[in-house]
Parts: sequence; C-alpha cells; structure tokens
Amino acid sequence: MATIKEIANRLGISVSTVSKGLNGANDISEDLRQLVLDTAVEMGYTTKRMKKEEHKKLCIFIENMDYETPNQFGYEIILGFKQAAYRDNWDVSVFPVNPEFQEKERYDTYMLKKGFTGAFFVGFALQDAWMAQLASTTIPTALFDNYIKKNPNVGYVGTDNFEGIDSAVDHVYQLGHRRIAFLNGSVNSMVSDQRQQAFFDSMESHGLSVDKKLMANGYYVANSAKYHVPNFLAAGATAILCGNDLIAAGTIEECRLRGFRIPDDISVVGFDDLPISVHLFPPLTTIRQDRIELGKSGYYTLNSLIHHVSIGKTLLRPQFILRESTAPVRSPVKAG
Amino acid sequence: MATIKEIANRLGISVSTVSKGLNGANDISEDLRQLVLDTAVEMGYTTKRMKKEEHKKLCIFIENMDYETPNQFGYEIILGFKQAAYRDNWDVSVFPVNPEFQEKERYDTYMLKKGFTGAFFVGFALQDAWMAQLASTTIPTALFDNYIKKNPNVGYVGTDNFEGIDSAVDHVYQLGHRRIAFLNGSVNSMVSDQRQQAFFDSMESHGLSVDKKLMANGYYVANSAKYHVPNFLAAGATAILCGNDLIAAGTIEECRLRGFRIPDDISVVGFDDLPISVHLFPPLTTIRQDRIELGKSGYYTLNSLIHHVSIGKTLLRPQFILRESTAPVRSPVKAG
Repeated sequence: MATIKEIANRLGISVSTVSKGLNGANDISEDLRQLVLDTAVEMGYTTKRMKKEEHKKLCIFIENMDYETPNQFGYEIILGFKQAAYRDNWDVSVFPVNPEFQEKERYDTYMLKKGFTGAFFVGFALQDAWMAQLASTTIPTALFDNYIKKNPNVGYVGTDNFEGIDSAVDHVYQLGHRRIAFLNGSVNSMVSDQRQQAFFDSMESHGLSVDKKLMANGYYVANSAKYHVPNFLAAGATAILCGNDLIAAGTIEECRLRGFRIPDDISVVGFDDLPISVHLFPPLTTIRQDRIELGKSGYYTLNSLIHHVSIGKTLLRPQFILRESTAPVRSPVKAG
Repeated sequence: MATIKEIANRLGISVSTVSKGLNGANDISEDLRQLVLDTAVEMGYTTKRMKKEEHKKLCIFIENMDYETPNQFGYEIILGFKQAAYRDNWDVSVFPVNPEFQEKERYDTYMLKKGFTGAFFVGFALQDAWMAQLASTTIPTALFDNYIKKNPNVGYVGTDNFEGIDSAVDHVYQLGHRRIAFLNGSVNSMVSDQRQQAFFDSMESHGLSVDKKLMANGYYVANSAKYHVPNFLAAGATAILCGNDLIAAGTIEECRLRGFRIPDDISVVGFDDLPISVHLFPPLTTIRQDRIELGKSGYYTLNSLIHHVSIGKTLLRPQFILRESTAPVRSPVKAG
C-alpha cells in the first residue's frame, strides 16, 4: 500500500495537502481534493475514512481479460470504476472468475452470501453460466461489453463499435483502399459480433462488397495474425483492420516477415489504443476506447440500477487516432 | 412562484425544516434535503442560493411537444432535467422553438451569445435546421430521442424502443393474437423509424409476417386513429399497437364507434404511459417511458459531455404496464 508521502511526491504537493484531501478538509479546492483521492485510489492507498462504511460493498468480476498492469486492457476499466465508486464511499473488491467457478454456485446466491449490493462484469463470454442467470437476476449488475434483454436490473456499458469500425473503414477508404480486410477477435463475443456487423454495414455504406476471403475471426491476441494474414495478402488486401491492437501488432509483424512494408504496401488499423500502440513500429493508427471513462460509466450505470433507474445501455463514443501505420493505397500492390 | 409555506404544506413538514433543506443545513438528512430541493424545483421556487452562480447556465429547447401541464408528455422530462441540474447549481432556461427560429440564427452562435454552456433538445424533427448543424457543433448538447453520428459533443438519451415494441408484440402474441396492426406516429422522426423497425423485427422473431394493410404512420395525436383504424378493422386486425397513448385513446374511440368492444373484440396497446392512460375506458395496457428519469438522464449525459466524457447514447429500459385494454383473441372476430 502506498504512503501519504508517496502520493505527495507523485503529485508534487505537500504531505499536509494530501492529508487534507484524504480527510475532506474544506480549505483546499474540490478539484484538488478529487485529484488526491483519485491518485490515492490509483496507488492503492486506503484511508480509514474510505473504509468506514463496511456495508457498502460492490464487486467486479473479471474473466478473459488481463488487468494487472497499466499496459493491459482491463487495468484502466477497473481503475475508473473504483475511482468513481470510492467517491460515493463504496468498497470495491475485484474477483477473477472462470467458467468452473460460475458452475459451482448461482450468481444471486453468491452475491447475497458475500453481502455485495451490486456487481460489474468485465470480459465474460456469451456462454458463461452466470450470463444465462442474468436474464432473471434481481441483483443490480452492470456489464462491460455484454447485453441482457429486458431485465431492468442489468445494464450494458461499452464503446459504440459501429462508429468505431466505420471510422476505420472510412479512413482507409479515403486513402484509396478498396481491398479492405478485417481480422476480428474471438467468436462467442458480443463485441466481435457487433464489429463484424459494423464492418458489413460500413463497407456497404461505402459502396464496397465484402470478400469473404478478406474476413476472419481469430482471438484477441497477436498470435492470431499468422493464421489469417497470409491469406489476406494472397487475396490482395491493401488494408487490414484488426479487432484489437494486439492483433494489429501481430499483423504488422506478419506482413513484415513476408516482405510487405507498413504502411507503404499495407495499411493496418488497430482497435482500443492500448499503451503499446504508440510504441509499435510504425506507431499504430487505431480506434481509441477510453477505458477510464468506461470504468466510470460502469459505476454510474450500476449506481443508477441500485437506485432503480433502469439504464439499459450506455455507449461511449470511440475516438479515431491517426498515427503512421496507414497511408494512401499503392496500385498495383507490390508483393514481397 | 411558490412560497416556503406552500412547500412545507405539500410535504407535511415545518417551514423551518424546509428552510434548512433549502439552505443546506446539515442537521437534516441528505435524503430529506434532496426531497425539499426537488419539491421546490417542481413548485417553481427559486432560492438565492440556487441562483448564485449566474454563469452556470443550461437551456432546454423544445419543439413539437406539449409540456406545460403534468398530463403532457414533455412536462416530467423537463422537470427531471431541472431537478438533476439544480443539484449541481445550474440555472436552467426553457425555450420553445420552431423551424423559423432555427433558420434565423446558427445554433452555436445563439448559445455563445446567450452564455449557455450546453443544451438539451427535446422534440426536434430530423429535418430541422439546428439538427443538421449538430453534426459539427462544439457546444455540449444532449438530445432526447435523436441521434447525431460521430460528433463527440452530442449525446442521445431515450427509451429502448426495440424492447418496448417487442414487449407489446410479445404480450398480444401470448394472448393468441396473430393479426397484429401497428399505428405508428409521425414520419420524419427517429423514434417512429425505430419503432417501425422494432415492429418488423419483433414480428419476425415471433414467426409472423407483417401485412402492409396492418401498418400506417399517423401523427402523435388521437385524431390519427380515424384515418387508419377502419382499414385495420376491415383487414381483420384483432390487436392494434399504437405509437403513443393519445393514438391509443383515439383507436379505442374509433373501434367503439364501429361497434367493436375493447378488449373483447380488439386489444389495444399504447406507448408512454401518460397520466391519461389509467383514466381511459378501459384503462390502457401500455409501455411506460419514465419521463422523470429520461430528463435526469438527459442532464447526466449533458454534464458528462461538458466534462469531455463522450457519452454517445443512454437508453433507459421501458416498462410493460398491464391494464385492461388487452385480452385473449376471439376467433372468429365478431364484426359490429
């Protein structure tokens, strides 16, 4: 756990100012107080004041997603959720789960037994046991990137995948690309399904038809690229859109191994804007999901559900990030 | 403007307690303080404290919608928005607008000139001049029931029309109805478009095809019914879903004039759950939109946009309200 001194050093302010921020003194500004609290949460510091309401407990269940370090996708989602929840004096626990764990005990039973008022689900797969139970749960539950029909106790938070994929298609289209491939992430994922539909919709709205040789589902890891990118290249792709930045990193690597230069021969677009994106060679053009805001929106949605305001969906806008992995199409494409 | 005494009478508490609530005294509970403030807002009372930050100004633009009295659709939307905004010390002005007004001056210019930080649009039509300008506005703007693509400064708040219409179709389907008609509201409305698509989707998912003789667009007024309901009846409809409760009121009246009993011969479902619904004969089965929560969600979305959190969509769950205007289908239908 961080000390007050470490928080003070991080922010470049005095220990006494940090102390005022943590204890709610009113002779520092509200903005500064909030910054101190947010930083304390981020650094793992917990005050007695934060802990005082032991009965106010929320939890985050996470699966299929890395979140331990700042360069991983789940890290900021959890951080954003905690920052927002702590402002309202909630205690937040994080539990990694797996399919076996979900088979052992019903979701509602587990929550009641542990005394949690509500939960935020991150990274669940459509076929998970608890996902099926959410159709009728009475526990306020917010889901990142998953949707449950008609249950007023459950809400969905995510990024608008339709706008994100459309931004990517539109960008390479404006650069003259017509042979546009899409290497999507895993099947059995609502997000993959949405992005696939979004790709079809956007190609159609740009007057392009989708060549099935230029579409594939892999997994949300870099290693996926080597199974599909060679086929895309053989089929004449000049631009490859990727389901996330890790797939894009693998795609860049795979193209280079086969003698294709990025972006001169092939343009590559990622999704997420993970910290790694800017360090790739070349730096990656991508679609940003603001993960801190996603986490905060997860909390706001959950808090609304707890107060019987039935928010079914909250969608954040994605942001198009132009870097150096995309360029005007070359015609004809130079093979390696 | 209401007096403190009137607020006290309404709530059944003492004038001094109201006074404490209005002045932020900390010897009353937070919940009571909030109730006093919400009631003060509802009754039109404004304290100096509420008015103190003159530079914090939001506005609501409203068009094509009645809102002056509690039985009208817009009333609670505006009330909910104000209640939530006043908690954060915003001053809120309400301006009715029309197409001519929008032609006179650009939206952004008007907002800057008047010193408004952001706006909530209620009831706008797709072809309105200001709607086109929202594609590129830099002013934080929340829209009730309208969506603008890709502009991170604009967010959409509404009820999930797909779930609402699906609940209505599913209800009459479970009652045995197969000849299901839909009398939608006005064209040139995003909501009408969504509900029409939702009707097609839901009929398909119930294994029913849509008969074009059983679908029509009217306007969101009772008078619409007389132009379309006779055709529906002639075409053998046994259930009529309506774009709102006013259309449903007209539909019930029109059926009765032609000798069809509700719900014995024809089932009718409304949309919105306006205060009138419960007073119709028979009381109306309908899909509830929680207008207070819609107004509050409009404020939360706008406040997020002002703080550069780009919420594109917030959708509330509709609620199915079972009353007496629907019943199991009779076969064959008895003509009047």
